[in-house]
Amino acid sequence: MVYRMEVTNGHNWDMTTTDTKFQAPAGGTGAELSLRALDGVKMVESGDNLTEIILAALDRSGIEPRTGDAVVLAQKIVSKAEARMVVLGDVEPSPRAVEIAAAAAKDARVVELILRESDEVLRVRPGIVIVAHRLGFVAANAGIDQSNIGNGEMDDKVLLLPIDPDATCRRIRAALRDRTGAEVAVVIIDSIGRAWRNGTVGTAIGVAGMAGLLDLRTRPDLFGRPLKTSELGLADELAAAASLIMGQADEGRPIVLARGLPYARREGSARELIRPRETDLFR
Amino acid sequence: MVYRMEVTNGHNWDMTTTDTKFQAPAGGTGAELSLRALDGVKMVESGDNLTEIILAALDRSGIEPRTGDAVVLAQKIVSKAEARMVVLGDVEPSPRAVEIAAAAAKDARVVELILRESDEVLRVRPGIVIVAHRLGFVAANAGIDQSNIGNGEMDDKVLLLPIDPDATCRRIRAALRDRTGAEVAVVIIDSIGRAWRNGTVGTAIGVAGMAGLLDLRTRPDLFGRPLKTSELGLADELAAAASLIMGQADEGRPIVLARGLPYARREGSARELIRPRETDLFR
Repeated sequence: MVYRMEVTNGHNWDMTTTDTKFQAPAGGTGAELSLRALDGVKMVESGDNLTEIILAALDRSGIEPRTGDAVVLAQKIVSKAEARMVVLGDVEPSPRAVEIAAAAAKDARVVELILRESDEVLRVRPGIVIVAHRLGFVAANAGIDQSNIGNGEMDDKVLLLPIDPDATCRRIRAALRDRTGAEVAVVIIDSIGRAWRNGTVGTAIGVAGMAGLLDLRTRPDLFGRPLKTSELGLADELAAAASLIMGQADEGRPIVLARGLPYARREGSARELIRPRETDLFR
Repeated sequence: MVYRMEVTNGHNWDMTTTDTKFQAPAGGTGAELSLRALDGVKMVESGDNLTEIILAALDRSGIEPRTGDAVVLAQKIVSKAEARMVVLGDVEPSPRAVEIAAAAAKDARVVELILRESDEVLRVRPGIVIVAHRLGFVAANAGIDQSNIGNGEMDDKVLLLPIDPDATCRRIRAALRDRTGAEVAVVIIDSIGRAWRNGTVGTAIGVAGMAGLLDLRTRPDLFGRPLKTSELGLADELAAAASLIMGQADEGRPIVLARGLPYARREGSARELIRPRETDLFR
């Protein structure tokens, strides 16, 4: 079912949706957004049930999830729960990996994993291999993480990105709905670098229950003219906002609850945010 | 004066600062961030005093600014206050502008303004001229805006970006301190497109009173290893967060107050976020 509607909050977004449960968000007027990093998130291990971890952290934080909330998860805990750790000793680098590793001055086994996780190598420079990840986005070193993955005896392991972050978001969203009755959006984020700008920003790599990309093209401005900005990277903006309070290092605050965000509920996908290869002017 | 210190909140960032007033943020533990789009912001006109407009809107919203808050301003109201509107009839396009306008299928007078506002043209495609703006960042059409700039009789005007957004932020920050005693950060944002990804995101084009870019390179992870993410685009993340509730069209909510953001006070600049031309792999 496809239909158009207006979200009756401050944004009044025209949207097309295929979600029959689509309705106005519970987030109020859209003029106030609160982001809360949940307390007491356990150290996530392989096989852990993230829904249970989220529910326990919400409980410990004294928060009851509401329809219209969004739960934002750091990539790292999703990868850990999904057992995406790889022992480098088990990795046999291909000749191509050895060649790129020499150019990048990186461990050839890590480069092998980067290549396995990627569709295309865009740039190779000392310390960095910039690729189009199999999940679609461009990222340095395929998002492979050598920090925060073990206890010091595990220096020979690295952590790959989740297998299918959109699917994980959908699963957690459904489980949270079953357990609490609340319709929340779920977003998985990673800290990803950009062309042209210094520093990483929190970026959505998995989305469920909200628009990844918001189409504003039908909206007039205050004077009835078409908008300068026609598409908004909504889930990326939420990812960046959540990243502000997740911290990057030893804070151990990998789960953020966002409340008051005006978003229209629909299935959504982080894929909406990927510019198609053929229209990308900067690869 | 340059010294190192730890911010005594959840982030414990090591930072180097030249600000002798540098101290821990007032934002509490850094585990909760609230963003509030201020009510009752008047339609900004050329010559308006933005500090007075911010103070009036804070007052109408029942908010007293506190040290550690951040005030985020939409580019558009800054440009309007700074009389950055240009009448297209007054613009004489150069031969180069005429040539690029033909390739871009754009008004040659608008292209002339794009060129005047830019240091380098990176790509020209129908409808879009991607440039390195004189302020350093890469942006489509030099951020020149043809929406929300008049009352319908003014279709021949466009709005350029502010002259020097960092300087404007510093001025407003100082004025807010003089008027309220509170040390707040001030950030000016615009909606800017990205390489590789669909949709614009709120992006910092002016910064005062906080780090634009946060250097995490000295920080170990939970297990004492160096961090995967070494530099964080802090002001860009704040810009994206504020953009979530500013809206893009007729909401008229161009001022956002952020409270609870863990940031270290220092002069700061949006220039910190610009990747130097010579290390940029994607121009």
